[in-house]
Amino acid sequence: MTDRPAGGLTTDLYELTMAASYLRHGMTGQATFSLFLRHLPAERGFVVAAGVDECVMFLEGFHFEPDELDFLSELGFDDQAIEHFRGLRFSGSVRAVPEGTVVFANEPIVEVTAPIAEAQLVETYLLNQITFQSAIATKAARCRIAAGGADLIDFSFRRTHGVEAGLKAARVSAIAGFTATSNTAAARRYGLRATGTMAHSYVQAFSSETEAFAAFAADFPERVTFLVDTYDTLTGVSRAIEVIRQRRLAGQLAIRLDSGDLLELSIASRRMLDEAGLPEVRIVASGNLDEYEIERLGQRSAPIDAYGVGTRMGVSADAPYLDSVYKLVAYDGRPVMKLSPGKATQPGAKQVYRTAGPKRIGPDLLASDQEPAPSGMVPLLVPVMEGGRRRNARSESVFAARDRLDADLGRLPAQALRLVGPKPVAVEISPTLQSLAAFVRSGVR
Amino acid sequence: MTDRPAGGLTTDLYELTMAASYLRHGMTGQATFSLFLRHLPAERGFVVAAGVDECVMFLEGFHFEPDELDFLSELGFDDQAIEHFRGLRFSGSVRAVPEGTVVFANEPIVEVTAPIAEAQLVETYLLNQITFQSAIATKAARCRIAAGGADLIDFSFRRTHGVEAGLKAARVSAIAGFTATSNTAAARRYGLRATGTMAHSYVQAFSSETEAFAAFAADFPERVTFLVDTYDTLTGVSRAIEVIRQRRLAGQLAIRLDSGDLLELSIASRRMLDEAGLPEVRIVASGNLDEYEIERLGQRSAPIDAYGVGTRMGVSADAPYLDSVYKLVAYDGRPVMKLSPGKATQPGAKQVYRTAGPKRIGPDLLASDQEPAPSGMVPLLVPVMEGGRRRNARSESVFAARDRLDADLGRLPAQALRLVGPKPVAVEISPTLQSLAAFVRSGVR
Repeated sequence: MTDRPAGGLTTDLYELTMAASYLRHGMTGQATFSLFLRHLPAERGFVVAAGVDECVMFLEGFHFEPDELDFLSELGFDDQAIEHFRGLRFSGSVRAVPEGTVVFANEPIVEVTAPIAEAQLVETYLLNQITFQSAIATKAARCRIAAGGADLIDFSFRRTHGVEAGLKAARVSAIAGFTATSNTAAARRYGLRATGTMAHSYVQAFSSETEAFAAFAADFPERVTFLVDTYDTLTGVSRAIEVIRQRRLAGQLAIRLDSGDLLELSIASRRMLDEAGLPEVRIVASGNLDEYEIERLGQRSAPIDAYGVGTRMGVSADAPYLDSVYKLVAYDGRPVMKLSPGKATQPGAKQVYRTAGPKRIGPDLLASDQEPAPSGMVPLLVPVMEGGRRRNARSESVFAARDRLDADLGRLPAQALRLVGPKPVAVEISPTLQSLAAFVRSGVR
Repeated sequence: MTDRPAGGLTTDLYELTMAASYLRHGMTGQATFSLFLRHLPAERGFVVAAGVDECVMFLEGFHFEPDELDFLSELGFDDQAIEHFRGLRFSGSVRAVPEGTVVFANEPIVEVTAPIAEAQLVETYLLNQITFQSAIATKAARCRIAAGGADLIDFSFRRTHGVEAGLKAARVSAIAGFTATSNTAAARRYGLRATGTMAHSYVQAFSSETEAFAAFAADFPERVTFLVDTYDTLTGVSRAIEVIRQRRLAGQLAIRLDSGDLLELSIASRRMLDEAGLPEVRIVASGNLDEYEIERLGQRSAPIDAYGVGTRMGVSADAPYLDSVYKLVAYDGRPVMKLSPGKATQPGAKQVYRTAGPKRIGPDLLASDQEPAPSGMVPLLVPVMEGGRRRNARSESVFAARDRLDADLGRLPAQALRLVGPKPVAVEISPTLQSLAAFVRSGVR
């Protein structure tokens, strides 16, 4: 992983063949592409838009390295194409919804307007980043909804699809309100709180569980989470209590349950800790958790103070991708649309209007970008790049995006927030946009 | 993305706290950790091991950068810990199954033996890489089984969990026998065949479909795949035929179907092409494909020559993670085990013995690494690092791993190869290992 912007080969080959063909045919007209979701996954009442800032950085740095051009030459691109690519930079403008905004199907998350070759070349990267970051942000937001007052900690790094995915999962889970991450590199990069104490291997490396607990407490007396389930969970709890008392520990103390029946074990552990006069020792639970299991534990009043959520959040296990597309909606002043069965698109550059806060969200209005805002509604898409340069020199902090999402979730109707059988907010299509579609469709036919 | 080995912070914080504690307590004994899968996902009769080479590169380059040490200092690690980390390199030995080997639950994919702090610190990265690369390699191998004689092309880059995941999905799909990838950067990095021609946006950017087809054919006359479903699929086919005839194209020609009923459309398109005297024009199908849909189309004899498989392979949609663990099995000459409910481990360093080729695979034997090979069986785990250095200076090619997997799949029983309701090969535990477990268990209790 690095911060260096990806080069021009970070794309599908067909983007390059199309770009070469556009340039050869003198097609340098402005194209607008719209990146949106065709449908939401079955158990999703909303999606959290994420990854926009990564896209802006990529676009600003987009270029071909000399060795990349050599490779394209080997692939058979002719000298004319190579010369076109050599000087190519992204010179277009981009509008996007701000990071952490709640979106629904058919609402553009990003719209790119640029000479068609440039706008085409960046398709793959933009889809890649927005799709996976939004999928994981959405899963994390659902965990946040399920957890109520309990804290959430990102434990996903060991099972995400790579190091890059682990870093970005930590970031988007922080946007969703997770309070800490186990991922050290992510904590550093994004200014998050890093957390973590011991694994089972630590307990096993000592000749007894008590010895392991005592050694760890000696090293980190102000902050210990005792992992109590290596051998027998409740025996582990009593050993943790023993070490806490003997050493008169008084910092941030917790026990962690990582296997077995978390409801029963948390109740029994809470009772043991309380009876030992240790009501301040917190209980952290982990192990195959997701929003469904967290909701179940919460509904049964499990005395769990924090949930460590790993794999299922970090890969968005029940919806590991979104049905995202990047569609040409206008070229050279002409709105265009696609009519493929089940995949037809709305033509033209767009805007999404939403009820202004603090009013409840919905229904949203999908409109042409030329239409004025209806009364009481505000536009979601805002300019983020112009002439190939980003409008804000600095990336927004994770916490600004977190506050935005928090406000959006507070304005969603209950049926969109439901974890099972949710109903997304309706997206109405403005009469102007409907007329435009009918007009373009008749021309295409 | 870069080739620079990830730094020492590419890990969970608890690995660092544990390592610091081990070093403070003078615990420098050799530890053996075993990385294996506890269970296979429901619809998996086997898993393809992948990612080992990435792990070896990481281990060889493992170190802390000065700025990483500064960050750990800020997090509260004391000077003693920082000094320990400053000089730390990975000095251990590693045994692993070769890339592309078929494995089952409880069989170690990697075993690391090193001073415990070193072996602990690398846990997160090793789990991350082996887990996701093996999950995707397995999904790709299932597509290969389903496709029979048809070609497979990796189209996943736009929906993988990041750029790194896209590169590695292209690589492991090549190991699984995919013949090409749309991912230009991956083709370059791993020496794969890159493929791709046009998207719907290309067709839409011209004032008519015929004009788009003709323009593309003029630019790339020797290799064109006409995307025919932008407006009406069979009309698109007839326009492609028209352009092929008018321009007397004679290179590698194909049409691509990307929506609608792929069975019906492929039959109708094949008939149109054949009637036009173009039996050599191939049919490529894509759009929400996975092994289940490819098998269905094959069973109905859809005349499809190549399948473009994207999202569902690239995220392993029905099993986006594996239940992988990295468990301490020996420390300082002493075998150890964990007894957590449902998560108990077998103690000691291990070997997996398998029937020698070309005999059918199974049952495998999980044994202590001290046991000799039973007659007619060969060991799966081979040394890949010693004293912190890799044994083979160069990474193996993707194609060597592909041939290995191909041979393994050819030796699997039919019930393990089944796509639905498969039954993995049995893994027996040697009497010696069983006795060792009973002995260690009694001591732990």
